[in-house]
Amino acid sequence: MKKFNITPTNKEFSKEIKHKINNKTKPLGSLGTLETIAEKLCLIQNTLTPKLNKPTMLVFAGDHGIVNNHPVSSCPQEVTPQMVINFLEGGAGINVFCKQHGFDLSVVDAGVNYDFEVHKELINAKIDYGTKDYSLEPAMTKEQCEKAFEVAGEIVTQKHKNGSNIISFGEMGIGNTSSASLLMSAITKLSIETCIGVGAGLTDKGLANKIEILTNVYKFHGVSENPLVNLQNFGGFEVAMMTGAMLKAAELKMTLIIDGFIATSSLLVAQAINKNVLDYCLFGHVSNEQGHIKMLNFLNATPILHLGLRLGEGTGAAIAYPIIQSAAIFINQMASFESAGVVNPAD
Amino acid sequence: MKKFNITPTNKEFSKEIKHKINNKTKPLGSLGTLETIAEKLCLIQNTLTPKLNKPTMLVFAGDHGIVNNHPVSSCPQEVTPQMVINFLEGGAGINVFCKQHGFDLSVVDAGVNYDFEVHKELINAKIDYGTKDYSLEPAMTKEQCEKAFEVAGEIVTQKHKNGSNIISFGEMGIGNTSSASLLMSAITKLSIETCIGVGAGLTDKGLANKIEILTNVYKFHGVSENPLVNLQNFGGFEVAMMTGAMLKAAELKMTLIIDGFIATSSLLVAQAINKNVLDYCLFGHVSNEQGHIKMLNFLNATPILHLGLRLGEGTGAAIAYPIIQSAAIFINQMASFESAGVVNPAD
Repeated sequence: MKKFNITPTNKEFSKEIKHKINNKTKPLGSLGTLETIAEKLCLIQNTLTPKLNKPTMLVFAGDHGIVNNHPVSSCPQEVTPQMVINFLEGGAGINVFCKQHGFDLSVVDAGVNYDFEVHKELINAKIDYGTKDYSLEPAMTKEQCEKAFEVAGEIVTQKHKNGSNIISFGEMGIGNTSSASLLMSAITKLSIETCIGVGAGLTDKGLANKIEILTNVYKFHGVSENPLVNLQNFGGFEVAMMTGAMLKAAELKMTLIIDGFIATSSLLVAQAINKNVLDYCLFGHVSNEQGHIKMLNFLNATPILHLGLRLGEGTGAAIAYPIIQSAAIFINQMASFESAGVVNPAD
Repeated sequence: MKKFNITPTNKEFSKEIKHKINNKTKPLGSLGTLETIAEKLCLIQNTLTPKLNKPTMLVFAGDHGIVNNHPVSSCPQEVTPQMVINFLEGGAGINVFCKQHGFDLSVVDAGVNYDFEVHKELINAKIDYGTKDYSLEPAMTKEQCEKAFEVAGEIVTQKHKNGSNIISFGEMGIGNTSSASLLMSAITKLSIETCIGVGAGLTDKGLANKIEILTNVYKFHGVSENPLVNLQNFGGFEVAMMTGAMLKAAELKMTLIIDGFIATSSLLVAQAINKNVLDYCLFGHVSNEQGHIKMLNFLNATPILHLGLRLGEGTGAAIAYPIIQSAAIFINQMASFESAGVVNPAD
């Protein structure tokens, strides 16, 4: 596996950024989280005048072998390709929110169990027709995982070359909250059952089944100290591609907007590979999938939105985008006490 | 005082709205608060295809006589006109966020202790050069309060005639968290000290002083069962104008985005005058001013954003606007299970 060369941001610069923020015509600290976001944008871009250029949304889709043999999801596997086609036709949640905020949206077939027709917004990067059933064997081989990283990295690099400096990652894959729960437990060391939730909408009985199935899977593979081995055992192709995409985007000094439960599981793996990736991350929202808040706590991350979302696809990141824009706008455009001739009560 | 004729929304229609929302291609309930907002927009506009037209922001500015004699604020009174001039020059928080989201912003001189030059974005509606010191006498007369309602109603009516159907109300006035705390206590019956916070940035000692001063004011006037009498005793002119503006906007079936602590104190008075106003309200955010969450709880209101804002001016409402837009967009533009040919797991 190629190493990622992610430069940590220069925290020394924070003092200068805070000075600029504190001289804006407003009570000290009164823009709350917007001030934190503005500071992070400045650190990432190493400037006092951060700009957001060509926001990119990559939605990775993949199928999961576990679904063929075990009822871990309330949806049948055919929903994965159906939703991919819905993305390509513009009818899904992620489409309408990306259109609202001017995101360049691409859908990546990371490994869906279906052959799609050629479409200009679909990137064919299929590793296989779904992962293996991880109740029986690792979900993917080492080579497949490396391939997923490589391809995802190339896609991100292309977007960066096209002028994008802010990117988010969504997903679609029936069964992928199971992968996310397994990875969450492996990385955070929280017990597997506390990492499992209802996903798209399991009943209480369905949830109990899911916990039993995944507990057995977890025991079967055990936890590795190598995050890549955990990813190969438990991951989906879309989860692996998001991990690789995040590491590459941070290497390119892009701002990453992290979406919900599944995207954050990819980040858990990414930061276990290279902690510096976190310097480039903003967190779009906290999902209603119960494990997500625990992931955010583990990462010491503050979500921008608390809207009870649990749709996936990157929707929570897209919906949070205008708030990030507001942060960039206030630090660039608001007057200072001096320039506006307003008494600074802190003086 | 002229009565407000506010039609309650037709809650029977909710079933049909929820049916439309539940048939969108997403797990049931997975858009969380966006679904609640979409439902409210549909109820207000009595349609399954709500539209947001020409968002309006009215920022009302006024001065407070109490400030001349008692140290209830960390800022001197001259900051009120200085900030109004900052609004007119485009340098304040509310300017940059309104520009971001295409709001038509007007600044209303409700009663600032300063004579402004004529400016196209400034509406001169000055009732007086600040309220009276309510530690000695009522802040305003009955006639002044009625005048505030009348003028604010005319401004809102004009915006509505120009095609706006969504409106918010911001404020600027050194000392106005004190008015808001007094009104909050009078309407909610929570003890006065639990309604008082640091405002723009009081020290612990400053806060203790503010509590002592306002507790004496509260005892001096007592609480009336007539919300208008409380408003006359404790209000600012900007607070009274926001109250009148809210009632008129609801009468006109506009969607109201309620901002932070001071704007919500105006709504507390408004809903005590006519409860139906609440059918037209969305709540932009929960402020870091400590009393605000208690106001929202009293109103059984769910704020859209939790960003630790406490800037006032209407900023929390403006920043929340794209989320409200997202709600309108998803209910209008997302595909249904039927139209997209996606299996509905709820079937």
